[in-house]
Amino acid sequence: MFAPVYLDYNATTPLDPAVREAMLPWFRDRFGNASSRHEYGRAARKAIDEARGQVAAAVNAHPTEVIFTSGGSEANNLFLKGAAATMRPGLVVVSAIEHPCVREPARQLLKSGWRLEEIRVDGAGRINPQAFEGLLAEKPRLVSVMLANNETGVIQNVAALAAGVRARGGWMHCDAVQALGKMKVDFRALGVHGLTLSSHKIYGPIGAGALIVDKRVELAPLVAGGGQERNLRSGTENVMAIVGFGKACELAAAQVEERALHLAGLRQRLEAGLRQMDARIFSVDALRLPNTSFFAIPGVDGDTLVGKLDRAGFAVASGSACSSANPEPSHTLLAMGVESSLARAAVRMSLGSASTQQDVDGFLTALGENLASLRTLTAMTV
Amino acid sequence: MFAPVYLDYNATTPLDPAVREAMLPWFRDRFGNASSRHEYGRAARKAIDEARGQVAAAVNAHPTEVIFTSGGSEANNLFLKGAAATMRPGLVVVSAIEHPCVREPARQLLKSGWRLEEIRVDGAGRINPQAFEGLLAEKPRLVSVMLANNETGVIQNVAALAAGVRARGGWMHCDAVQALGKMKVDFRALGVHGLTLSSHKIYGPIGAGALIVDKRVELAPLVAGGGQERNLRSGTENVMAIVGFGKACELAAAQVEERALHLAGLRQRLEAGLRQMDARIFSVDALRLPNTSFFAIPGVDGDTLVGKLDRAGFAVASGSACSSANPEPSHTLLAMGVESSLARAAVRMSLGSASTQQDVDGFLTALGENLASLRTLTAMTV
Repeated sequence: MFAPVYLDYNATTPLDPAVREAMLPWFRDRFGNASSRHEYGRAARKAIDEARGQVAAAVNAHPTEVIFTSGGSEANNLFLKGAAATMRPGLVVVSAIEHPCVREPARQLLKSGWRLEEIRVDGAGRINPQAFEGLLAEKPRLVSVMLANNETGVIQNVAALAAGVRARGGWMHCDAVQALGKMKVDFRALGVHGLTLSSHKIYGPIGAGALIVDKRVELAPLVAGGGQERNLRSGTENVMAIVGFGKACELAAAQVEERALHLAGLRQRLEAGLRQMDARIFSVDALRLPNTSFFAIPGVDGDTLVGKLDRAGFAVASGSACSSANPEPSHTLLAMGVESSLARAAVRMSLGSASTQQDVDGFLTALGENLASLRTLTAMTV
Repeated sequence: MFAPVYLDYNATTPLDPAVREAMLPWFRDRFGNASSRHEYGRAARKAIDEARGQVAAAVNAHPTEVIFTSGGSEANNLFLKGAAATMRPGLVVVSAIEHPCVREPARQLLKSGWRLEEIRVDGAGRINPQAFEGLLAEKPRLVSVMLANNETGVIQNVAALAAGVRARGGWMHCDAVQALGKMKVDFRALGVHGLTLSSHKIYGPIGAGALIVDKRVELAPLVAGGGQERNLRSGTENVMAIVGFGKACELAAAQVEERALHLAGLRQRLEAGLRQMDARIFSVDALRLPNTSFFAIPGVDGDTLVGKLDRAGFAVASGSACSSANPEPSHTLLAMGVESSLARAAVRMSLGSASTQQDVDGFLTALGENLASLRTLTAMTV
């Protein structure tokens, strides 16, 4: 099988061998509905409880605060819609650079009488503290700000923002899907009411995620039924995926520092090479995740470049995977005030555990070759 | 590892070896976000499209009518809440014996101004046509009736009910989670607007399900975000589980007749033995799934018996797995007018592909032995 060099770890990640090992019995011959009271059911329940402990420990939460979901999108929807359903309609505030699975449920609340405001960001993709203070004065009931952006990798000071929201009696949610495993994530230290995690961004399987939720928060379930997960998420628990997620969380917490060091070293090498090609790297002035590099070569269309790199054996993205079907330029870049023409040139590289210096060097070489041919083409067209 | 005889296939099923084989590449080394436009993403998309075709073919639907979800509970919630969100509040009608993941979302609609009525069933667990006609006169906007009950196995004439609902301009939904693989399920022939399927009840993995949805039906998404699944279910698609689900559907459709024959033969043997022990078998007068036997030994507590059988190496249930944490007697039996004391004696056996005559005979022997000791105990207590 042709295996291109994978440089799109923010979209999804391969399974860590230790995660696969943990899942293997449930793939091979173990099975059971965790709600069954016989031996098969009890074994499934025990495996889920162990995973719940691993997830909680990874983010300094209590196991009873972990609500397993099918993934990050569901967890984000659960917090926003689930909390709103228990409140009188009011103001919901999300940052302008949130993932669609935060922005869209926030927009859905408009139908039930909520008002929605977006928090502006500066040119580097950081939340503007003045803009945020201004919105706090309007006493939002619900606020959601991501810990690290999926496209730029920019990290927000969520703990400070959460303190402001709490002080005014609002509930603060944080999407930490991209942050987990790449930086320290501490539920208590962040001081948020809800925290979203996803398995498949941290070398765990697709199909598991969690909403870490403060017990004082009352939520209506999105998926109602049999009453699983403290009645907040019904449906037969996906034991195999949850077991893998638990192991992935354990590894993410244990290895976060060495992973970050490895990734930061590679990215430095990558961005040094990019600068030599006159690339404009977004958000370099902000605190960023160590693995993400979002850049543009002015005058070169991002989609075209990504297609050429794909054929050359390098898998990168022209933006977030979730919006790859969408021909619009990155909403994150537009929110940062980047011109539409430059935003259309954007390419995202996100490095991961298997990335090597050779991958980076090979990518830079392929990029250089393709740029040369693209520029020749452009020159001829003009 | 101690492996008790599994006789609880309505709770969940082991993976079919051919399903595991289909999933294996995605468990081992293949991975990708289906929204990514590079080679990894395209391969994931292709695998999902193939599975979509398999699911559609199994129930005589068009591939574009298949909306993948994380499972049956989510699909049921998506139809009821998703449809209600696009309508003015009115009457929602569900049968009295629906799974909690239909009854609970229906109850949640009360908060947004809907009225809820339950359709009564007769002593054998069949929907009462007069009661149904009476409710239709009230012009329900939404109706949900399961194709086969998870506890009794009773099959409803959903096609006839759906015709009545359509004639009055309502939308009809059907939960076919327990029916699929045990009887023919035909989306067109049923004439419903929405049909729920689940992977892990048909020897596929937990973590995948589908809502088959008539394209004329407008739904609001439960999980909003990146716009996957025609914008009806956002979130990174669980490729491995979807691939397994697709294969399981293919097998379910191809093998439904031979499976039914095998199961019906075993159940006949089982129920002949049960009758010799003076068991009361529920719903024998109704059309039932071939694998399910719900019975009670008057005077013997169901939970106690299930516990004893578990220790003797036989995994059966005292009711549906989803409510096993609930000490209340089966709501299905209560809806059928079964007395609470007899309902508390209920035990559900659900046979499956790996079940054998020896399993049935061994179970009957273990049951007889345990009944003898339980009766001695009861006699001594009295």
